[in-house]
Amino acid sequence: MAPLAQDPFDWIDRHHARRRADGLVRTLRPRPADSPLTDLAGNDYLGLTRHHEVTAAAAEAARRWGAGATGSRLVTGSTELHARLEAELADFCGFEAALVFSSGYAANLAAVTALAAPADTAGPGPLLVSDAGNHASLIDGCRLARAGTAVVPHADPEAVRKTLEAHSGPALAVTDSVFSVDGDAAPLAALADACRAHGAALLVDDAHGLGVLGDGGRGAVHAAGLAGSPDVVATVTLSKSLGSQGGAVLGPARVIRHLVSNARTFIFDTGLAPAAVGAALASLAVLRREPERAARVRYVAAELHRRVTAAGRVSVRPDAAVVSVRAPSPEAAVAWAADCRADGLAVGCFRPPSVPDGVSRLRLTARADLSDRQIEEAAATVLRTAPAA
Amino acid sequence: MAPLAQDPFDWIDRHHARRRADGLVRTLRPRPADSPLTDLAGNDYLGLTRHHEVTAAAAEAARRWGAGATGSRLVTGSTELHARLEAELADFCGFEAALVFSSGYAANLAAVTALAAPADTAGPGPLLVSDAGNHASLIDGCRLARAGTAVVPHADPEAVRKTLEAHSGPALAVTDSVFSVDGDAAPLAALADACRAHGAALLVDDAHGLGVLGDGGRGAVHAAGLAGSPDVVATVTLSKSLGSQGGAVLGPARVIRHLVSNARTFIFDTGLAPAAVGAALASLAVLRREPERAARVRYVAAELHRRVTAAGRVSVRPDAAVVSVRAPSPEAAVAWAADCRADGLAVGCFRPPSVPDGVSRLRLTARADLSDRQIEEAAATVLRTAPAA
Ligand SMILES: Cc1ncc(COP(=O)(O)O)c(C=O)c1O
Ligand SMILES: Cc1ncc(COP(=O)(O)O)c(C=O)c1O
Repeated sequence: MAPLAQDPFDWIDRHHARRRADGLVRTLRPRPADSPLTDLAGNDYLGLTRHHEVTAAAAEAARRWGAGATGSRLVTGSTELHARLEAELADFCGFEAALVFSSGYAANLAAVTALAAPADTAGPGPLLVSDAGNHASLIDGCRLARAGTAVVPHADPEAVRKTLEAHSGPALAVTDSVFSVDGDAAPLAALADACRAHGAALLVDDAHGLGVLGDGGRGAVHAAGLAGSPDVVATVTLSKSLGSQGGAVLGPARVIRHLVSNARTFIFDTGLAPAAVGAALASLAVLRREPERAARVRYVAAELHRRVTAAGRVSVRPDAAVVSVRAPSPEAAVAWAADCRADGLAVGCFRPPSVPDGVSRLRLTARADLSDRQIEEAAATVLRTAPAA
Repeated sequence: MAPLAQDPFDWIDRHHARRRADGLVRTLRPRPADSPLTDLAGNDYLGLTRHHEVTAAAAEAARRWGAGATGSRLVTGSTELHARLEAELADFCGFEAALVFSSGYAANLAAVTALAAPADTAGPGPLLVSDAGNHASLIDGCRLARAGTAVVPHADPEAVRKTLEAHSGPALAVTDSVFSVDGDAAPLAALADACRAHGAALLVDDAHGLGVLGDGGRGAVHAAGLAGSPDVVATVTLSKSLGSQGGAVLGPARVIRHLVSNARTFIFDTGLAPAAVGAALASLAVLRREPERAARVRYVAAELHRRVTAAGRVSVRPDAAVVSVRAPSPEAAVAWAADCRADGLAVGCFRPPSVPDGVSRLRLTARADLSDRQIEEAAATVLRTAPAA
């Protein structure tokens, strides 16, 4: 081949240098199997990812069904185990039907794009009305959909109402149930009212609600009385409360049937690995048997919040498992998280461009399996290492 | 809540009725753990998904590392097992570095969008030059990228050359290495020459090449002498030859580092489940020890092709593991596949809208673990059930 006269990736080094100067470069820090740290950074809200029944179910599924699904769900990638998980997810969360994807990200891309398909191949697609604080996967879904998108102010049902009023034709409102940065909940009932008043559909990403909110952890959509509504679709991940991997769309049977034939991230993606399917099923079984795990994680979050605000820190009151504590700058947030880690506590650190408002924060995630002593110690560590307020 | 005055999902039923009339509705057919069918439909090319070492590694990884990764790779989702797989993939395929994603789909979205980021935040992004036969995930990547896309005729390096010639400024050519519909290979060496002559980068999706093509299954990019080139990036899936789930991007270290900080499907997605990581590592170990599996799958594909064409069927000469056999219509293809299934043989069936040219085909995938007897019987079944040519 000809020698390289011009290097097409030169720009990456310049881009990297700029990012580094802005303190925005990320690096990976692979963890060992048995970390000595107390984990308040992951999304294993119910403490199930290492539950012996869950890991045993993953292992058994791999042995019995194979290490992979071997193909698209439409070809060889649907096992009876997938069907069982779909039936169980729909039943648990109160929906007619469910469809499992290889990730929550893929489930969100599928739901937004397939529901934004033109009602009539000739006509325009529905308007997407998207909360400004939505997760990246919903935003990417809006970008991929061939539909107009109106971004509305965060958690503002009045803005949604006005946008729908000003629009004639079909519409789909899209929102997280619990926003991943600040842990605040969307006003789902008011959003549903606004949608219903204008004949619009509502799509809710319940990634951080499942396992934490609602009766026995049935999620925020269930808690709002919206599960099973003919005009509401929910997405969930299997990777947070359920301690596994994957995602699902829940909704009316005809919506699910539509996704099977139309959603590109369903049709052109390999099915979820059996081990992940088995693990999610086992987690749901534990949650059904021990519904108090959902209440416990909410209590742990409230306790963490109470302790840091009592010491004068700024933190949004947590509606679910995520507790966000404001930091004065990206650099201070990074240093704060590093100091926590040095003291044996893993916490998250959110900073631009991963935060929509440019405000950096520590992100603490509650876990149902933390003891009162661990909560107390974690809060003390966060406060001891805090920068000047 | 207000009663439902207007049903926002009515259009789905109309859409479904039209699709049904056109014979385009898909349904799921969940399979049992032990199917009596001979499988020529899945992508488990090397027969590794149920290999005892691979399923044992998946089980062991779930037990040792947990059922899920618990968070984004940038937070808690990177384990030392992920790092080990990345090092091994890079080493095996001949690249400087690798980055693992939760699916091949996500890896492709990441590679295209992050490499299409403007070289300078002010300037325009590179032109994406995309083969008309590319996989849906590459197409979605082009749609998501904020860059112009030129779709060029299938497998036509001259068209790429002309497009690059007519364009001033950076460019990225994007292609499958083996196209999933017909199983034909891309002219990688000629494409790389065209790119290099114009200072453009080349992104190759080696989903169907890994494990099948190149020295010991090192893939089509390795076979073309392009592995490790400073201007070439490859993506692979862990879900086909490696019998697991997930995907990876392989390339120069600076490209991988760029993805870590910039690719949305990396940053905002939960890390691949440990079981899938462990399984992929075990498959690579088997493939290193038994490199003849790669040659065997190519032989099986060639044999299937030889037998069906000898009987007068139209089939593209397979460059890898996929053998496509032309069917006279979508309905005939569906009936043909159903007849094969009734005779104990699972085959794929590709029809609109999953085929770019509107031509329906049976899709047979070769497996390294098929015996000569099974090849003979499979070909006989396909021919016995064939519609009038
Ligand atoms: C609100 C929200 N939606 C979707 C996702 C994506 O889910 P997954 O990681 O399972 O792909 C995440 C996090 O990863 C999330 O926080
Ligand atoms: C060419 C090609 N690229 C990418 C993918 C996506 O990979 P995965 O299924 O692992 O997400 C597939 C198939 O699924 C494919 O055939």
